[in-house]
Amino acid sequence: MIVILRLERGSGTTLQRQVYVQIRDQILGGQLAQGAEIPASRVLAREYGISRNTVIQAYEWLLSEGYLETHPGARTLVSRNLPERSLNVGPIGNDLSRSAARVAPKTPIIFKSRPPKLPRYGASEAEIDFWPGRPNHRQFPLWALKQSIVECLVTPASALSDYGDPGGLLALREGIAGYLRAARGIRVDPDQIVVTSGVQEALNIVARMFIAPGAEVVVENPCYGSAALVFESYGARMVPVDVDEHGMDVSRLPGAKTALAYVTPSHQFPTGATLPLERRLKLIEWAHNTGAYLIEDDYDSDYRYAGPPLVALAGLDTSGSVIYVGTFSKSIGAGLRTGYMVVPRHLVETARDIKTLTSYGHPWIEQVALADFLRGGFQRHLRRIRRSYAEVRDVLISELVRAFGPQEIWGTENGMHIMWRLPAGLPPPNAFVERIRSYGVGVHTLASGGARDFGSRYADSTLLLGYSSLTKQQIISGVRAMARAAEDLASKGVAAIEDRPLGVPARLPRSAHDLAKAAVQR
Amino acid sequence: MIVILRLERGSGTTLQRQVYVQIRDQILGGQLAQGAEIPASRVLAREYGISRNTVIQAYEWLLSEGYLETHPGARTLVSRNLPERSLNVGPIGNDLSRSAARVAPKTPIIFKSRPPKLPRYGASEAEIDFWPGRPNHRQFPLWALKQSIVECLVTPASALSDYGDPGGLLALREGIAGYLRAARGIRVDPDQIVVTSGVQEALNIVARMFIAPGAEVVVENPCYGSAALVFESYGARMVPVDVDEHGMDVSRLPGAKTALAYVTPSHQFPTGATLPLERRLKLIEWAHNTGAYLIEDDYDSDYRYAGPPLVALAGLDTSGSVIYVGTFSKSIGAGLRTGYMVVPRHLVETARDIKTLTSYGHPWIEQVALADFLRGGFQRHLRRIRRSYAEVRDVLISELVRAFGPQEIWGTENGMHIMWRLPAGLPPPNAFVERIRSYGVGVHTLASGGARDFGSRYADSTLLLGYSSLTKQQIISGVRAMARAAEDLASKGVAAIEDRPLGVPARLPRSAHDLAKAAVQR
Repeated sequence: MIVILRLERGSGTTLQRQVYVQIRDQILGGQLAQGAEIPASRVLAREYGISRNTVIQAYEWLLSEGYLETHPGARTLVSRNLPERSLNVGPIGNDLSRSAARVAPKTPIIFKSRPPKLPRYGASEAEIDFWPGRPNHRQFPLWALKQSIVECLVTPASALSDYGDPGGLLALREGIAGYLRAARGIRVDPDQIVVTSGVQEALNIVARMFIAPGAEVVVENPCYGSAALVFESYGARMVPVDVDEHGMDVSRLPGAKTALAYVTPSHQFPTGATLPLERRLKLIEWAHNTGAYLIEDDYDSDYRYAGPPLVALAGLDTSGSVIYVGTFSKSIGAGLRTGYMVVPRHLVETARDIKTLTSYGHPWIEQVALADFLRGGFQRHLRRIRRSYAEVRDVLISELVRAFGPQEIWGTENGMHIMWRLPAGLPPPNAFVERIRSYGVGVHTLASGGARDFGSRYADSTLLLGYSSLTKQQIISGVRAMARAAEDLASKGVAAIEDRPLGVPARLPRSAHDLAKAAVQR
Repeated sequence: MIVILRLERGSGTTLQRQVYVQIRDQILGGQLAQGAEIPASRVLAREYGISRNTVIQAYEWLLSEGYLETHPGARTLVSRNLPERSLNVGPIGNDLSRSAARVAPKTPIIFKSRPPKLPRYGASEAEIDFWPGRPNHRQFPLWALKQSIVECLVTPASALSDYGDPGGLLALREGIAGYLRAARGIRVDPDQIVVTSGVQEALNIVARMFIAPGAEVVVENPCYGSAALVFESYGARMVPVDVDEHGMDVSRLPGAKTALAYVTPSHQFPTGATLPLERRLKLIEWAHNTGAYLIEDDYDSDYRYAGPPLVALAGLDTSGSVIYVGTFSKSIGAGLRTGYMVVPRHLVETARDIKTLTSYGHPWIEQVALADFLRGGFQRHLRRIRRSYAEVRDVLISELVRAFGPQEIWGTENGMHIMWRLPAGLPPPNAFVERIRSYGVGVHTLASGGARDFGSRYADSTLLLGYSSLTKQQIISGVRAMARAAEDLASKGVAAIEDRPLGVPARLPRSAHDLAKAAVQR
């Protein structure tokens, strides 16, 4: 039997290893048949111009692993005792399609959910994309973070070498506690915080804590789609409660027991409505009366441009009913994958246990850098970003007014996107979005922007416009494309929206009003 | 009504915000009663030496949020319409214990598992801790990693600002694929790899994919405790299969259908046994015949000191039955929280979906640094570490032989720990461990070292000794403490192990034999 080898010197793999691997693969691949005699080590060594010891070592390994067997007369044969199933089946791989006839059906996949596609920089087809909730990468505090990382990477590197606190680095939890107290009115002990891989992991932890198949979860209608997907993936049933211009209509909360209610009071996703104090307090009372927990997702509350500072539900609650989740994905960047959850004391142990069992804790580098940043430049960074986002938001609003006349725009007081209720005469959202995209501009319907709609009155008359990642010029060009797209569709006779389903007056921030007026006067 | 404020200038919070927050908290805390009149803005401003506009702004916020109400004669009162539940309940907090009488029981916690405590540098009570599987932090490749990170942190920081590929950075997956092909004989497409938060997250992804309550999962007996906990936390029932000196006894695998089998063929945890080729092939055949998936946990396979290179199950499998999980926690450091799973093609989409829904992907910094390191110094790093771990392992073995005579030691060929079968005459594991700890030295029983035992023959006669994180001197001192502890207990008449339950001959690497001989001659 001839053994064909392709040996490379200086490849980083020793020659004996190459001999071993290649003969093994040929046995498993069937090129070297069972019982076939292989060349004596002396012969093979001469043939390939390698040392005999190299071949002997490789053969020894193959013998000890059972690929080869020796026979009287020092003959070496391919083992005849290898299980048949593992042989003659083509190249080594890990691919079901290459498999021989299947004996038993594989264990079925029980996971059913299908998560949404994530927005990625450079991955969008649109040159200008009004994707909601994406920070401006030009304003990423790279220099500060880099400084922090470099300073923290000192020997001995036990923090990188070992596991950390599964609940998160204490210094980071202290920084988060300080921020939450000052900015969100939440008095919290660092022990109540668990650092998570964004809001997403926090929602999974809550789901594992409470959701048995069939459990009921109250969500806003419309709501953040990914949250509904997480709960549903654990078998929950969604109980949607309608959202009006003041956020979730708490008078419609179910009377019967539900496990959880997932809410976005600061800047309702997707409508942008802000839940007033009275409703906040009623919501907490409802939770207290029914025993449900509230999950308060404060995803973009770092950006508040007008009005009084909002107190979080978690800052109002005194009954241990609120689980607060926040993230650095919006205030700094999603690539850090760092967020957190704040839980009532009686849930701390379980939340930490689940985090431990799920991932043994969060990576150290991001935590130490963020802890440093929270002590230092974070507030300044937020002030700068807030100013700049408010500016592009104003440009967006005034351009919309200039192009389409006075508009009903929701969610301008805070956050990173607005909801635009299309006025009568404009095309319906899906056709409009598609046409706008032909100009290289991405705008989003509730569904394409990441919301789940349970037959609300918004889906057929609104667009979501995220402005935070765009420059003023991009916004001006984007709105121009919207105007052109509307004209195109009107000239083609595409059916327009006829009635404005709601008569809520336009709600514009004063600065935007002034801009709009100026625009009209021009 | 007197309003008491504590205002701080230059605290980073504006004065109007401080006024707002403090009055709000006093209302919610009950110090300012409902209907109470609060001072006119002019009065409060004079009292605290602040501008009247500051007070007016704060009052406006409080009015708009419903905390205050105005009355004829420009009187301003604390609102009488605040829901009673939110008031008079002491300081704002988030604490169940402070709550008033509960109306309804809270949603019960359904998560039942209790994960093990993780070893942390500096957190152990023992000065010298033989914890298994912990890398040596003095050899962390800090400089190389720091270089990679600094080089990758360049503007524009879109990779930090945006979401990445939820399956992991392509460059890292390519690096892992290259490593697996060269070192483990696995031919894998980078698309089949999902970057995870260590082995732990990978096990959770597999569990979500396949484990419905009541599903059966084959595990080794004894096995890695955390893996069993993960499966059980999803409702699985464990089906233990005994381990002998050649690893899992595949002749005892159940005939009936099970969902999964979790195995550690390279260096069985905790016994250290290596599964021979014949058993590997039989295991794969069993999976093929029954339809079960094999989870191959190759946690410490980077360290192989002797014998032929081991081919992973995933390199032998041709039927798409093996899910391979690996980690950089052992080869580099657990603080990176980076591992990976390799799945057959037909499972790729589901694995990525679960990873997305669970965490929206892995942090970018660790991935880009590791990708760079895999292209550069990783192999050199491993060679260096391997040499150094082999040295301390030899010291450990020879010291044990010197102190206690010839020993039966398992798992010396690879990995980061050994299993020591205590000879007749030594105290039983629990008493021994406790006594050794009194000398400031941590050694571990199967249970305390992270293993789960289902009544195996090892629990009452073995210790786990991790050597990788220790210096030679620490090992010498540690074994000395073990010898002293054994003497202490013998002199106190503590019952000793009488029979060695198995007569397997001592399996020492040659280098260690030489060392032991040298030790005896001295």
